[in-house]
Amino acid sequence: MTLIDEAPPQADIYDRRCPSRNVLGHVTGRWGGLVITALLGGTLRYSELRARVDGISEKMLAQTLRELLLDGLITRTSHPVVPPRTEYALTPSGREVAGLVRALVTWIEDHVHDVLASRACVDAENVT
Amino acid sequence: MTLIDEAPPQADIYDRRCPSRNVLGHVTGRWGGLVITALLGGTLRYSELRARVDGISEKMLAQTLRELLLDGLITRTSHPVVPPRTEYALTPSGREVAGLVRALVTWIEDHVHDVLASRACVDAENVT
Repeated sequence: MTLIDEAPPQADIYDRRCPSRNVLGHVTGRWGGLVITALLGGTLRYSELRARVDGISEKMLAQTLRELLLDGLITRTSHPVVPPRTEYALTPSGREVAGLVRALVTWIEDHVHDVLASRACVDAENVT
Repeated sequence: MTLIDEAPPQADIYDRRCPSRNVLGHVTGRWGGLVITALLGGTLRYSELRARVDGISEKMLAQTLRELLLDGLITRTSHPVVPPRTEYALTPSGREVAGLVRALVTWIEDHVHDVLASRACVDAENVT
């Protein structure tokens, strides 16, 4: 089985060889989901992204942006001004997938207190 | 700021202290998303889950199931038969969040070939 062909086979994320697993990792990994949903509000400069995604390091932000650029989900525009200004924005594909991640994030934000309550109950039952 | 209170503050996934980030990690982490979306088809036994989620180790499946149980997103039912039979199913909350993850996974499966094409183009431009 090859995953790139004239008539590509249907992707199957449950198949360990399918590259869709990597893409899922990029848009939902520790930082990818936060970065692309932050860009749903519009173009952001590097320093603005860093401030928005609380806790991300320089190294992780640079790595996350590179993966999303390679996936074609964001664009990077450098303005030849002093000091240099670099802006990031979603591509049309990036906007689609960010909208789906945003729906998931919103559900979690709305239900996190239920989840924490569940953890307290289940911990009490000593599930292992 | 405390994150659990009589009137809990609105969760904010961009805040590094918000526990919603952990929950996002559980449902979209390397294995969590694959496990909960596999359960959208109905109750599965441990061995069936292991077979469905290609590449997952015993250790990672056990750890993933434990996190999802603690979050109240799945249930575990043990049947007192010989040999012992343990089944996993989504809770109503788990079904909601799994549906949102499934939408994301479906988008990625449908677009993975575009993403791979993008990577080939961007690699050629030597983005670093």
